[in-house]
Amino acid sequence: MDFTVETATDAVVDSFRQTKDRRLREVMESLTRHLHAFVRDIEPTMEEWEAAIGFLTAVGQTCDHTRQEFILLSDVLGVSMLVETMNGTMNGTETGTESTVLGPFHMTESPRRELGDSIDLLGTGRPCVVSGQVLAADGTPLPGAELDVWQCNEDGFYDVQQPDVQPPGNGRGLFRTDVEGRFWFRTVVPSHYPIPTDGPVGRLLDATGRHPYRPAHIHFIASADSHRPVTTHAFVDDSPYIDSDAVFAVKQGLITDFTESYDEQGAERFGVTVPFTHARFDIVLAPEPETT
Amino acid sequence: MDFTVETATDAVVDSFRQTKDRRLREVMESLTRHLHAFVRDIEPTMEEWEAAIGFLTAVGQTCDHTRQEFILLSDVLGVSMLVETMNGTMNGTETGTESTVLGPFHMTESPRRELGDSIDLLGTGRPCVVSGQVLAADGTPLPGAELDVWQCNEDGFYDVQQPDVQPPGNGRGLFRTDVEGRFWFRTVVPSHYPIPTDGPVGRLLDATGRHPYRPAHIHFIASADSHRPVTTHAFVDDSPYIDSDAVFAVKQGLITDFTESYDEQGAERFGVTVPFTHARFDIVLAPEPETT
Repeated sequence: MDFTVETATDAVVDSFRQTKDRRLREVMESLTRHLHAFVRDIEPTMEEWEAAIGFLTAVGQTCDHTRQEFILLSDVLGVSMLVETMNGTMNGTETGTESTVLGPFHMTESPRRELGDSIDLLGTGRPCVVSGQVLAADGTPLPGAELDVWQCNEDGFYDVQQPDVQPPGNGRGLFRTDVEGRFWFRTVVPSHYPIPTDGPVGRLLDATGRHPYRPAHIHFIASADSHRPVTTHAFVDDSPYIDSDAVFAVKQGLITDFTESYDEQGAERFGVTVPFTHARFDIVLAPEPETT
Repeated sequence: MDFTVETATDAVVDSFRQTKDRRLREVMESLTRHLHAFVRDIEPTMEEWEAAIGFLTAVGQTCDHTRQEFILLSDVLGVSMLVETMNGTMNGTETGTESTVLGPFHMTESPRRELGDSIDLLGTGRPCVVSGQVLAADGTPLPGAELDVWQCNEDGFYDVQQPDVQPPGNGRGLFRTDVEGRFWFRTVVPSHYPIPTDGPVGRLLDATGRHPYRPAHIHFIASADSHRPVTTHAFVDDSPYIDSDAVFAVKQGLITDFTESYDEQGAERFGVTVPFTHARFDIVLAPEPETT
């Protein structure tokens, strides 16, 4: 039988019938159906199909060891957040702190640091203290919880983007909570920043009238025994673009007050001088699913 | 409002509202809806999402000036044929010879040749004559029609794949029909062949239990004034894989008899000796659409 617009999808789905891995077969069948539905919907010209091939090729060829343009494409199409959100919701983490995207900058291991250390290795920025508690869903503090933290600097750049300006590990730290599940460290308030605009994804945003900015945020991965780890952000409450994150990652529950503090006692405890910026960000971890 | 599984698609579609190019907006909206529907359907784990990013990146990075792995991916998913078929049907070429995929080997200009010339520059293969007529839909012969022909050799390789064995332009020719719309040239019977299997698309076929073979065929692009050009193949009727082309390009109407001939007169006319293989392939061109 000829391959026609009507028989095309069944023919391709059928070609995957001998796939041994059941999950792979399910994915390829679903991909075929949705991809063909998209093509039938937009009825591309041959020139548009060629342009799509060229775009995807350019996205792949923009990737290197410090850049992942396909993650960026997944991010700006909301796919990364959709996958992240489905994995969170489906596994019951609605009882814990909400997750958000990992992003493309968790590429080096964060250096181990002591509570109270500064992750701002240059020390030229306005001091900011981040403190909080890692808790179980029932409010029990989680001592010895692991906290991986990374952020950009006041100019909106991560260490790996500015190897000539920032020492490796700047803006990064691996902390462990104290006996009361508490953590605190010193840093600078991160800036909002544009995702890379000099590649095909940047050109797509430009062609569709979208800005490339992400609101200011600090990344966290929190984990503790017998609990589900969470990958999330603390968003700076008054940051530009808080309502229009280019990668759709903002959740209201993750917007955090970064307040000006004149508290002398607190300043002494945290090893800073007044005035300093103080952000409090508690993290609640859901229990591990029973089935695993 | 938070980005949730329920609101995700509308949020991303809405982000494209300021796209100036109306067609681009339509495409991005449709892409978002179908891509999100696929993701909601398969509910990928984070590891599966990472594997998909890795696969697409590898496809892009396998492309170079002699290889287009994204076209290959489009081919094995039936997308190339679907787009080709839609463009054919929608534009009324059902009155002409059916089209099929261009494929990735139309990368060099075919050398101009005279009717009767051989495109087998090595001359070591079994002689084959291809002849036919280019006609309008009403049967009127089309003199001076242009015919771009390319094919692989008896071992299943195109000239560009074997630069050390085949001279450039081997298996290729640009012909013009005579006053009666006729064409004829000498060649060898092409072999079936596997699409490149050493890249990510080859690994996908392997993982899904699919063979990588295309049945033997000769490529044609035929064009004439006031007619729609057609990109098509003449498939060798008794070729292996004629019922399971890895890229879904076979149409029954394009399967052509390649018959053993002992016709002494014909042999003399075509400049070969008996026995020779003879294939007759007529091409009907639909009229150009009125609107253009």
